[in-house]
Amino acid sequence: MIVAVDAAGGDFYPKNPVEGALQAIEENSELTVLLVGPEDIIKKELVNHSYDEKRLLVHDAPQLIGMEESPAQAVKTKQQSSIVVGIGLHKAGKCDAFVSAGNTGALLAASMFILGKLKGVLRPTIAAYYPTLKGFRLLVDAGANLEIKPETAVQFAKMAEIYCEQILNITDPKVALLNVGEEEGKGTETLKEVFLTLKKEDNFIGNVEGKDILPGKADVYLCDGLVGNIVLKFGESIPEILQQMMSAAIKDMNLSQNEIQNIQKVLHTALSPFNYENVGGIPFLGVDGVSIVGHGGSSPLAIKNMIKSAVQTVEQDVNGKIVASLN
Amino acid sequence: MIVAVDAAGGDFYPKNPVEGALQAIEENSELTVLLVGPEDIIKKELVNHSYDEKRLLVHDAPQLIGMEESPAQAVKTKQQSSIVVGIGLHKAGKCDAFVSAGNTGALLAASMFILGKLKGVLRPTIAAYYPTLKGFRLLVDAGANLEIKPETAVQFAKMAEIYCEQILNITDPKVALLNVGEEEGKGTETLKEVFLTLKKEDNFIGNVEGKDILPGKADVYLCDGLVGNIVLKFGESIPEILQQMMSAAIKDMNLSQNEIQNIQKVLHTALSPFNYENVGGIPFLGVDGVSIVGHGGSSPLAIKNMIKSAVQTVEQDVNGKIVASLN
Repeated sequence: MIVAVDAAGGDFYPKNPVEGALQAIEENSELTVLLVGPEDIIKKELVNHSYDEKRLLVHDAPQLIGMEESPAQAVKTKQQSSIVVGIGLHKAGKCDAFVSAGNTGALLAASMFILGKLKGVLRPTIAAYYPTLKGFRLLVDAGANLEIKPETAVQFAKMAEIYCEQILNITDPKVALLNVGEEEGKGTETLKEVFLTLKKEDNFIGNVEGKDILPGKADVYLCDGLVGNIVLKFGESIPEILQQMMSAAIKDMNLSQNEIQNIQKVLHTALSPFNYENVGGIPFLGVDGVSIVGHGGSSPLAIKNMIKSAVQTVEQDVNGKIVASLN
Repeated sequence: MIVAVDAAGGDFYPKNPVEGALQAIEENSELTVLLVGPEDIIKKELVNHSYDEKRLLVHDAPQLIGMEESPAQAVKTKQQSSIVVGIGLHKAGKCDAFVSAGNTGALLAASMFILGKLKGVLRPTIAAYYPTLKGFRLLVDAGANLEIKPETAVQFAKMAEIYCEQILNITDPKVALLNVGEEEGKGTETLKEVFLTLKKEDNFIGNVEGKDILPGKADVYLCDGLVGNIVLKFGESIPEILQQMMSAAIKDMNLSQNEIQNIQKVLHTALSPFNYENVGGIPFLGVDGVSIVGHGGSSPLAIKNMIKSAVQTVEQDVNGKIVASLN
């Protein structure tokens, strides 16, 4: 198994992608990682480490795509960027998957244009991991499709369901539609139509509300990409905000160092389900390949876990199962 | 000043509305409260209290509207319900405002049908208080208009801005559009059009993302009612979920009773900005009257603060200022 890793993506490249790749080959002896990015800076970083040179390779891709660059434009004009080169290597069969902590839009665009769609897929989608009291669940679409239609929504649900089963090991995942109320007939005209179409599916449990996400009422929360993106980024902001609120509260209480440490430890443990590092990345579902994107701030651990998810996605033949379910 | 209070609304009537009303007249000597609901149950509750009978009156409205009843249906068929009677009294000039912790949809429907719209208003809107690091700010629309158009969005922003200035005492409130990215040109076609229309307004600071809400980047977060309702209910679920996560974390740590109490106290203080009791209710903006709805679980304190908001809305002539700004 060969996984290509974007060594020029995210806020901390090449350090974090390189260290994540090293952890991944350490953990999985069957794995080879291909670091894709500017050869000079990758090699400079690798000098600090000792590793099996047959299982950690470098593929030069000298152009850089910034986090704020226009995705379509970047993919079109930067043919020598790590994302375009890496996805190209995947398309050519030189690797089994590509993971990146870089520009999400650019990776999505490159995956769509270069890899193309799986047979029967109307539109690929982003399924984001979402922290709940029951562990991580999926929020789909998380921003790739700002508007959804009944026919695409049903496919998003099916693809997310398969990913849930195969990668999150959830048996018979429950799918719910994120809406303004629980009763059938709630929401916009589009949501009402989506509801009627989903109603025919076995695992559909109906509408859920914003308050039902964190308790983990469903395994797959279906919504349009506008709602998904806003809810995703909102959720990601909670730990930092809470840390600030707790610190302010602690200040006013005149506690001992020991007590403060205990509180910080409890908070840290309590917020650990929000820690995206444990899942590492989110998959593009529906593209003809395995393409996973991570947070810009991905740590080495997050990159390692992204690589792990990619390996599992290939091993469990998630794409084969998606094609079988849609055709 | 006379404020009518729904004594048959919310999860804890008549107790909480009655106690809230008692606190309100205690605090404001210029205020008279009219308790609207089934006379027998209100009077039975009042027996437990001593109060100025000239300043706490009862108006019989024997029918009950359940929290889950269809709003339009309830308003049409239950003419003797507290909501229809209370809003009717307001329309007839028998009171200056109406507040309720009952069925939000029914109050919205009754306010729309009976009070009508202010001159120049295309559609009334719900502006929900949202907790941020800087204190409560407004999220508009919070569920009354699931879809928005540029012309309604601009009005929602203006109405919320006036409410922010007059009731939240924020000078020159900043308005932002909740979107999937900060740059102009992000989002759905509708959001792009809304952006272009808002751009002409002085206080518009551009697009913000889901992560920008809790830090309080803007004072008015503009969105459609689908996004608003989901984000509102999601936010309301955070304190309870966090309490559960913290309790689970504490269990594993073998702490003393004293240490646990300190942690609970810090958490309580940290989460206090999320406590809706301090604001009590959310206004329907754009109706020709003052109509405020609270959480179903509103405490006496929350009811008291809803009444206080209603008094301020009348005293500051929020509606007059809205009409002046839109015409």
